[in-house]
Amino acid sequence: MSGSTLGHLFRVTNFGESHGPAIGCVIDGCPPGMALEAADIQRELDRRRPGTSRHVTQRSEADAVEILSGLYEGRTTGTPIALLIRNTDQRSKDYANIAESFRPGHADYTYLQKYGLRDPRGGGRSSARLTAPTVAAGAVARKWLLEHHGVSLRAGMVQLGEIEIPFEGWHHVGDNPFFAPNASLIARMEDYMDELRRAGDSCGARIVVEASGVPVGWGEPLYDRLDADIAHAMMGLNAVKGVEIGAGFDSVAQRGSRHGDEMTPQGFRSNHAGGVLGGISTGQDIRVSLAIKPTSSIRTPRASIDVHGNPVTVETFGRHDPCVGIRATPIAEALLAIVLMDHALRHRAQCGDVRPPVTPIPASEGDTTR
Amino acid sequence: MSGSTLGHLFRVTNFGESHGPAIGCVIDGCPPGMALEAADIQRELDRRRPGTSRHVTQRSEADAVEILSGLYEGRTTGTPIALLIRNTDQRSKDYANIAESFRPGHADYTYLQKYGLRDPRGGGRSSARLTAPTVAAGAVARKWLLEHHGVSLRAGMVQLGEIEIPFEGWHHVGDNPFFAPNASLIARMEDYMDELRRAGDSCGARIVVEASGVPVGWGEPLYDRLDADIAHAMMGLNAVKGVEIGAGFDSVAQRGSRHGDEMTPQGFRSNHAGGVLGGISTGQDIRVSLAIKPTSSIRTPRASIDVHGNPVTVETFGRHDPCVGIRATPIAEALLAIVLMDHALRHRAQCGDVRPPVTPIPASEGDTTR
Amino acid sequence: MSGSTLGHLFRVTNFGESHGPAIGCVIDGCPPGMALEAADIQRELDRRRPGTSRHVTQRSEADAVEILSGLYEGRTTGTPIALLIRNTDQRSKDYANIAESFRPGHADYTYLQKYGLRDPRGGGRSSARLTAPTVAAGAVARKWLLEHHGVSLRAGMVQLGEIEIPFEGWHHVGDNPFFAPNASLIARMEDYMDELRRAGDSCGARIVVEASGVPVGWGEPLYDRLDADIAHAMMGLNAVKGVEIGAGFDSVAQRGSRHGDEMTPQGFRSNHAGGVLGGISTGQDIRVSLAIKPTSSIRTPRASIDVHGNPVTVETFGRHDPCVGIRATPIAEALLAIVLMDHALRHRAQCGDVRPPVTPIPASEGDTTR
Amino acid sequence: MSGSTLGHLFRVTNFGESHGPAIGCVIDGCPPGMALEAADIQRELDRRRPGTSRHVTQRSEADAVEILSGLYEGRTTGTPIALLIRNTDQRSKDYANIAESFRPGHADYTYLQKYGLRDPRGGGRSSARLTAPTVAAGAVARKWLLEHHGVSLRAGMVQLGEIEIPFEGWHHVGDNPFFAPNASLIARMEDYMDELRRAGDSCGARIVVEASGVPVGWGEPLYDRLDADIAHAMMGLNAVKGVEIGAGFDSVAQRGSRHGDEMTPQGFRSNHAGGVLGGISTGQDIRVSLAIKPTSSIRTPRASIDVHGNPVTVETFGRHDPCVGIRATPIAEALLAIVLMDHALRHRAQCGDVRPPVTPIPASEGDTTR
Repeated sequence: MSGSTLGHLFRVTNFGESHGPAIGCVIDGCPPGMALEAADIQRELDRRRPGTSRHVTQRSEADAVEILSGLYEGRTTGTPIALLIRNTDQRSKDYANIAESFRPGHADYTYLQKYGLRDPRGGGRSSARLTAPTVAAGAVARKWLLEHHGVSLRAGMVQLGEIEIPFEGWHHVGDNPFFAPNASLIARMEDYMDELRRAGDSCGARIVVEASGVPVGWGEPLYDRLDADIAHAMMGLNAVKGVEIGAGFDSVAQRGSRHGDEMTPQGFRSNHAGGVLGGISTGQDIRVSLAIKPTSSIRTPRASIDVHGNPVTVETFGRHDPCVGIRATPIAEALLAIVLMDHALRHRAQCGDVRPPVTPIPASEGDTTR
Repeated sequence: MSGSTLGHLFRVTNFGESHGPAIGCVIDGCPPGMALEAADIQRELDRRRPGTSRHVTQRSEADAVEILSGLYEGRTTGTPIALLIRNTDQRSKDYANIAESFRPGHADYTYLQKYGLRDPRGGGRSSARLTAPTVAAGAVARKWLLEHHGVSLRAGMVQLGEIEIPFEGWHHVGDNPFFAPNASLIARMEDYMDELRRAGDSCGARIVVEASGVPVGWGEPLYDRLDADIAHAMMGLNAVKGVEIGAGFDSVAQRGSRHGDEMTPQGFRSNHAGGVLGGISTGQDIRVSLAIKPTSSIRTPRASIDVHGNPVTVETFGRHDPCVGIRATPIAEALLAIVLMDHALRHRAQCGDVRPPVTPIPASEGDTTR
Repeated sequence: MSGSTLGHLFRVTNFGESHGPAIGCVIDGCPPGMALEAADIQRELDRRRPGTSRHVTQRSEADAVEILSGLYEGRTTGTPIALLIRNTDQRSKDYANIAESFRPGHADYTYLQKYGLRDPRGGGRSSARLTAPTVAAGAVARKWLLEHHGVSLRAGMVQLGEIEIPFEGWHHVGDNPFFAPNASLIARMEDYMDELRRAGDSCGARIVVEASGVPVGWGEPLYDRLDADIAHAMMGLNAVKGVEIGAGFDSVAQRGSRHGDEMTPQGFRSNHAGGVLGGISTGQDIRVSLAIKPTSSIRTPRASIDVHGNPVTVETFGRHDPCVGIRATPIAEALLAIVLMDHALRHRAQCGDVRPPVTPIPASEGDTTR
Repeated sequence: MSGSTLGHLFRVTNFGESHGPAIGCVIDGCPPGMALEAADIQRELDRRRPGTSRHVTQRSEADAVEILSGLYEGRTTGTPIALLIRNTDQRSKDYANIAESFRPGHADYTYLQKYGLRDPRGGGRSSARLTAPTVAAGAVARKWLLEHHGVSLRAGMVQLGEIEIPFEGWHHVGDNPFFAPNASLIARMEDYMDELRRAGDSCGARIVVEASGVPVGWGEPLYDRLDADIAHAMMGLNAVKGVEIGAGFDSVAQRGSRHGDEMTPQGFRSNHAGGVLGGISTGQDIRVSLAIKPTSSIRTPRASIDVHGNPVTVETFGRHDPCVGIRATPIAEALLAIVLMDHALRHRAQCGDVRPPVTPIPASEGDTTR
């Protein structure tokens, strides 16, 4: 059973390969009546696009989105919204050597063994290019979340390889190519990237994603908890190796008397829970942290085997980001938006006529990012 | 859309509350012809059961499982396997105070606000007791995985609160009440637990779970990657706040030249990937690490509100584990088994006639637990 | 992928075999806050039960339902509702001959060939006994539909073998063992049944099922139209060989100028559509008609083969209804209730804040059963 | 929860509106390694296309399909296959009057009331044009079914309005514009159509669809029986009001001694079951019959209301088939192919290693179309 659909009620079905004719998605389940135009989606795609700074791939895809269906006179009709992005920058490159051997850290080996054949052009289906349709669908979700629930999303990089990036303020994120919530480390990060590039190497990153304004009550225990579905979406993103909610791995060494967030009529006193208790949103900020592994495509020679099982040495040339985590920021926001919107609809389906018996605790107090 | 079903083709639908008449599950999709008896399931349930050491809840549930359907003459018939566990230890306790206020760190507040009412007896549906049906279903999955693919699973605790537990060997896990893969720290851990108990406090834990023998090819990118579905299952477990695959958060500071696992005809040279590349199993050990938060039920007084929105102080008395992570070990194994079995069937559905074109790389080399 | 779950948001997972320990189901997705007790379910089960007249199987199952979960203080909590019915009348019969050969018209052959083994006791999973959990789940759905939307359901038999039963009035249905909406043919039907019983033969039936009060707007085109999901549920019932909506097969010979239901501010002028246009409910009565095949278990000797492929003659003795269609009436109502409730929730998920722009056309005019 | 996806493992997600930029679908779950090219799909689309005879709509859409993804060097890769068909014949027609009132028998009223707004251009999403992507997806399924299981499909018209069409032979179907399995009635049918056209009226049709070569064992009871899923797919097709399997409604008046198909080592003696027993394929031909209602778009004036609730008279001009059933033939084949392929994969998932214990009964004997 193939797994190219994300979400249950707000359903995003992704298609395409890096160097095929096109990539895109079909969104089924979007509520009707929402104003939507291509520019709403293009804006998010442009944030993710390669070539926006010298630290990310220089592949010059326009990534222009076309809305094929689901709109009438500028409003969603409740029918599927199909989004199409043509692949325009398919360099006539020779993929023969990639087709013949397996790049360490890549999906070459697993795709071939699973399916019996694989599309080697630019990584085929396993390319990070396929995150573009996810970002496009996320743009629809975040628009609805904002208009219907006042939910806003934001993400930033808090570690680049060995460099920890102390949180100073969200407003910094838009001012630097690293999406860092900190203005003072940019030069150091640029040097670090240049050094990696010279060394033919790469590094990982840690990304935080947050949603504010999520009402209490979203999430479907036992198994489809809000945090579980967030973890599913995030771990499904290329290169992610770890996901935390709230205090995450720090909670291991915390005591219960510290971890459990106290409540007052004025608000929660802390947010170690990351906005989720028992798999259901508390009304506090949803806080997620991701570990992104270093880019696998590096110039440094590495041992591998070829399709005949013989040992080979693999070096990867061409356009590649030394840190794929940089571009992960808008994608992580999109994924969180899709999960939240799916849960908004799931909650409405079952509990659409429930009125929370207690006046919701404000999210404000204690809700500062660590 | 309620979320009480785990898995797509091997489907586990969980039901029950802590103090209702019974808990259990229905497993739909188990292949026919497998020998199965209640003892196969009871064995796993007994590992999870409270009261097995002085470090875990002394609630004395027999947790005896009854197989209601899906078997004929000791073999699975391919029809749903319903498992029933009666709740026997429902002490005639007064839950009025729990019903009136919200325990910090618990799901009391979120359940009430989501559904408009809640079952306060023993935490109702949000109780860790509901992991028993998951363990029962996991027992069926792990039996099939072993018989059909030679897959084996194991888990252990590698950190208890502030105490890091160096990995010495899996054989230690069965010899101590902490499921620790290390024999030398037991006394220190016992002292630590006693100290917490005296202080009326609790601590978290880090658990590792592994599966050996998983063939190359399981996992369904784009979204339902094997690691994504593992993250979903694990983050859906009570108290889990973080999930890592392979190197996890350590991969942030790793360089690509170190992280990407080199391949040779004799095997992979390392397993930073944790057995998954591009969302598909590599044939190496699947390695997962979990952060478990400290138990929320503690004797230490904590600030909260009542159902009228007034400030109150909450203290929790009664039987509670100072570290819920101890009992999480068999549950994590069960969850991993369910996810793997689901993916075994999903892979067979689509690729049942694919023969991997390359002789699979052995998993042995480099596959030692860090 | 096993198919023991009916519904998407109101999900009924059925388990059990005719002569196993128990049968039952888990309902996931029921909205919280609805008053519910076992008697609400038992009432519907009693209508379906064998042994209620001399024209149906004399198997004396009490079919007493136990609610295992999902309730607190008499109200649904929004968590799964597990329903259990113990099998009590498992006669110590010798099933060896059934196990060795295939009864014509039964699922013996197909179950064995599909699964490699089968439970021959009373038909195992393929027994009509497994409709009891469906009826139980339907009782929950119809209670919610009535309370939340004023929807009511009813069914009756309109043909018994060769005897067509003209519709006179729904009030007759409860007054005769055939669920016939006609009081004048009962003696003839009883004679017909006696004649069949003497001849060791059986007959089919046609059943109509209706729902009144369904609001305009339920149904999810393109594929999950309301009528499509009704057809799925009904054709999934044992012995059903045909399903019609509205005019059904009569519409083949109708002209468009007759078939298309005219609309006026006072109501629709007819209901050939059966309450569904474009897969979405119109607000008129939902009308469904079912063809039920004759009972396969008959005393008349029939040609078949045994499990070794040799020709044999099969005669079926024991307790069997000469017309299984008689008991199908309450089951068909239950199935329609489940489908409607599922669609009520599906509609609320996506369109929960849509207000129909036009004052709904009343259902009254032209809405008389043909 | 929107319902634009058909199938569980072979999943077809349909998008588009009659007069939007494009229509199409994404097929997820197709097994890898199958040779496929656009011509394989175009062939089936051309059979469905309007304008192929004077008895069907003269809209001149090229309906040229483009494969956007899922292929590499002419073979399926196991990743989603996206199919795109541009809408080219969007006449600059004034849809204002359609937008203002509701055509009887159409989905105008229900779409508007459900979604709060609707796309009135050519019926928008409810147009029969949206069957084109279904046909395209069906082409992929039928190619795989033929290559992997030797399954072949065929359909024909057996009643046109009042004209019953006796079955003479499948070879006639390709020789006449009605897809009739009979050569002698063509002139009469043409006259009948001309008469309807002159009268500004329309008629219904009955279609039969069959699949040969389906192995024993496909279908997932309890609820997702093969016949139930066929009924779902067929009743989900525009204008279908009834679905029969095998003897269908004729089985009501049959006796059990006639209906139950006897088995011999040489084959079944009849096929009243239509190739399905207990929801599982028997190995005989799968036989389905459909009732198609008369075209709703007719010139005859009809009573209706406008969007303000006022009475109006509606006449429909423009290109419309007097009998939509004519073009339903290739669509019904496509739907049956999709359902069968989905069940082939579902069966392989759970029972992939089951070997049927009994030598399968041949399908030949008694397997003639009535």
